[in-house]
Amino acid sequence: MNAASFILKGDLCDSLDRERLRTVPDGYLVCLDGLCAGAFSVLPEEYHALPVIDCSGKLILPGLTDLHVHAPQYAFRGLGMDQELMEWLAANVFPEEARYADLAYARRAYRDFTQALTRSATTRACVFATVHRPATELLMDLLEESGLVAFVGKVNMDRDCPDDLRETTDGSVAETRRWLEETAGKYKRVRPILTPRFIPSCTDPLLDELGAMAAMTGLSVQSHLSENRGEVECVRRLRPDTAFYGDAYDRHGLFGSHGRAIMAHCVLSSDEEIARIRERGVYVAHCPQSNTNLASGVAPVRRYWDEGLNLGLGSDVAGGSSLSILRAMADAVQVSKLRWRLQDDSLRPLTVPEAFWMGTAGGGSFFGRVGLFRPGYEFDAVVLDDSRLTAPRPLTVAQRLERAVYLSEDRDVVRKFVQGREVSLPS
Amino acid sequence: MNAASFILKGDLCDSLDRERLRTVPDGYLVCLDGLCAGAFSVLPEEYHALPVIDCSGKLILPGLTDLHVHAPQYAFRGLGMDQELMEWLAANVFPEEARYADLAYARRAYRDFTQALTRSATTRACVFATVHRPATELLMDLLEESGLVAFVGKVNMDRDCPDDLRETTDGSVAETRRWLEETAGKYKRVRPILTPRFIPSCTDPLLDELGAMAAMTGLSVQSHLSENRGEVECVRRLRPDTAFYGDAYDRHGLFGSHGRAIMAHCVLSSDEEIARIRERGVYVAHCPQSNTNLASGVAPVRRYWDEGLNLGLGSDVAGGSSLSILRAMADAVQVSKLRWRLQDDSLRPLTVPEAFWMGTAGGGSFFGRVGLFRPGYEFDAVVLDDSRLTAPRPLTVAQRLERAVYLSEDRDVVRKFVQGREVSLPS
Repeated sequence: MNAASFILKGDLCDSLDRERLRTVPDGYLVCLDGLCAGAFSVLPEEYHALPVIDCSGKLILPGLTDLHVHAPQYAFRGLGMDQELMEWLAANVFPEEARYADLAYARRAYRDFTQALTRSATTRACVFATVHRPATELLMDLLEESGLVAFVGKVNMDRDCPDDLRETTDGSVAETRRWLEETAGKYKRVRPILTPRFIPSCTDPLLDELGAMAAMTGLSVQSHLSENRGEVECVRRLRPDTAFYGDAYDRHGLFGSHGRAIMAHCVLSSDEEIARIRERGVYVAHCPQSNTNLASGVAPVRRYWDEGLNLGLGSDVAGGSSLSILRAMADAVQVSKLRWRLQDDSLRPLTVPEAFWMGTAGGGSFFGRVGLFRPGYEFDAVVLDDSRLTAPRPLTVAQRLERAVYLSEDRDVVRKFVQGREVSLPS
Repeated sequence: MNAASFILKGDLCDSLDRERLRTVPDGYLVCLDGLCAGAFSVLPEEYHALPVIDCSGKLILPGLTDLHVHAPQYAFRGLGMDQELMEWLAANVFPEEARYADLAYARRAYRDFTQALTRSATTRACVFATVHRPATELLMDLLEESGLVAFVGKVNMDRDCPDDLRETTDGSVAETRRWLEETAGKYKRVRPILTPRFIPSCTDPLLDELGAMAAMTGLSVQSHLSENRGEVECVRRLRPDTAFYGDAYDRHGLFGSHGRAIMAHCVLSSDEEIARIRERGVYVAHCPQSNTNLASGVAPVRRYWDEGLNLGLGSDVAGGSSLSILRAMADAVQVSKLRWRLQDDSLRPLTVPEAFWMGTAGGGSFFGRVGLFRPGYEFDAVVLDDSRLTAPRPLTVAQRLERAVYLSEDRDVVRKFVQGREVSLPS
């Protein structure tokens, strides 16, 4: 079935540009065969025959993009947050991820994750699974059924992790190949993405093989970069052959030179690394809540912004506790204020419209023409009922958006459209 | 009617001490005439005849205390967050507070506030109103009806604010006297608290008069202290006669020398000021979200903790966007990690059990024996249905508490008891 053509009526808000919101109170958002035909305050004649979905009085936003989230970690979101990255991986992440060898467990946990993501304002996500091929394929099945659009990665790890998670190099490569074969052409909305966990858990030969796959297939890559001091020191020890952390990915062709690449965090990136990120068009997934919970610090996002890097937001569940990308926008603004106050007052804080851009158009662009209500963009839209957020006097649409960033909850999402198709929200 | 005697059955969690949680899975919390008689894993014989309120499977926590919140600012929570304190006061706070001269507006806005506070996990609060006596009395009426326990302050301001809010010194004193007379003995659960807004908006003669009232009546005092750089500089200019900001309150007897005092923020307190806070037993209301939103910084709470200061949490709505003191616990932990990472690694981050203590027993102690499930404590309890926070395997009560701190929402509060009386939750 083709995506329908219809009109969504309500209080529209997307980005006018990177710094400013565009609002269309009581406006008309036109969907033609799955693509946006524009946002109008007066409906053009040519669309008068289309059916109208009336969401008057509700906020209508572009679907949000989560550029970095770990599906298996949703099971322990909001737990074990009194540790830093390397200890937290050993104590919480690896033991949990080992459970996904059990498909029954994976089904239960991934169903929870998929339902929560579907219920949220997110329409697109880049998702880490675990090393387990069968569970990864199960996750892809569930996400496809949900109607969301996602990149999903089978994780590769052949060193420095517990025995029950560590793959052999050959095994990791073989399972990755088999995963790609088995899922090729299987889904409409879910695509594979190469996912070496991070440099500490991948040997050079494994990275070489993955780089060769990227070169052959043009697949995108997702991984972690310069997140936490302990991790950066570990990479320096492990890879004395490299100029900086990101260079280790780049040497294997996993840094945007073949397919595109998303690197989560970039809290501690050096000047050289930032230059390479820019040069290769690598996407930075800014994960403010995770970087706070794991005491990693605050990424210099204003600098990335000014240098025009590709930027989006990640929940990084379960380094971040919340799946909400609206919450991630608020977190991004908040941590930028503390960074400005405590660390470097040359980088002024982010604003709500800027964070909103990152969570919509910024991250969305990884998926193509996504994240704006512009003609030719894919029609991803989220309808928020913000009537719960009472006010004793009328607010503008921009004020309601700001308030939604700080205070909305997943339950406020009442309808959701992805590529012009309505997604069924779990109760 | 006397408060009832009954048993609350469920998964109990309070503080064992400042550092550790105490949990009683499937336990019995006994209320005798409004006081707690203890928390038991096996119900003692002597209580077998009491009626049981069965909340099995739900989390039962002590009621939370919000040590610092501005009722009139609830109207613009989550708005105008791209400014620092002094600009934000002029642009957002003062224009809104001026509206409370209109009792019809105040009724609408204060009803919203009271309902939201009632719906939250908070059972006790220290509340700023505005300069307006009639609206302040209205707020006290509404809070009394709600069943919560609160201190409420008519704000005093006789300088450095817009004409429509600025009182004359004599007028401020007269209205404060009249307010105290009119509300004397009127309420069971709501009490007045002297509330000079902060040093920049109060002249010396006004502070003298308020200090005399504190001396005569023994009333407590609430105000702001060393929140933001601009404010601290302003006080230094205005009060060259004082050794430090808090000294300005102390010279007028408003710093815990008569009644008790709560000072919100203390982000930038000097060694001398901290020593005076300790000496006078002043309560520090730590407001992490507000201090982040207004780019004030992060208070050195670990130091206050180690020095044994009286400490609690404040939402500081609308410097903080959220009324939730569970959220304030998470915020307190999170900002302490950023402070540790970015500013001063000698002050190690707070833990969840410590933040929980601050939001329950710490702040609660301002109200007497409040915030613990101990014999003789007032019976304030909150029942949280955390079943929404799914997990693929069983969690301990302590884990569920940690998760509730990071992820619960007001809607998870399903029952609430204050001084042994059940509070009716607004829908």
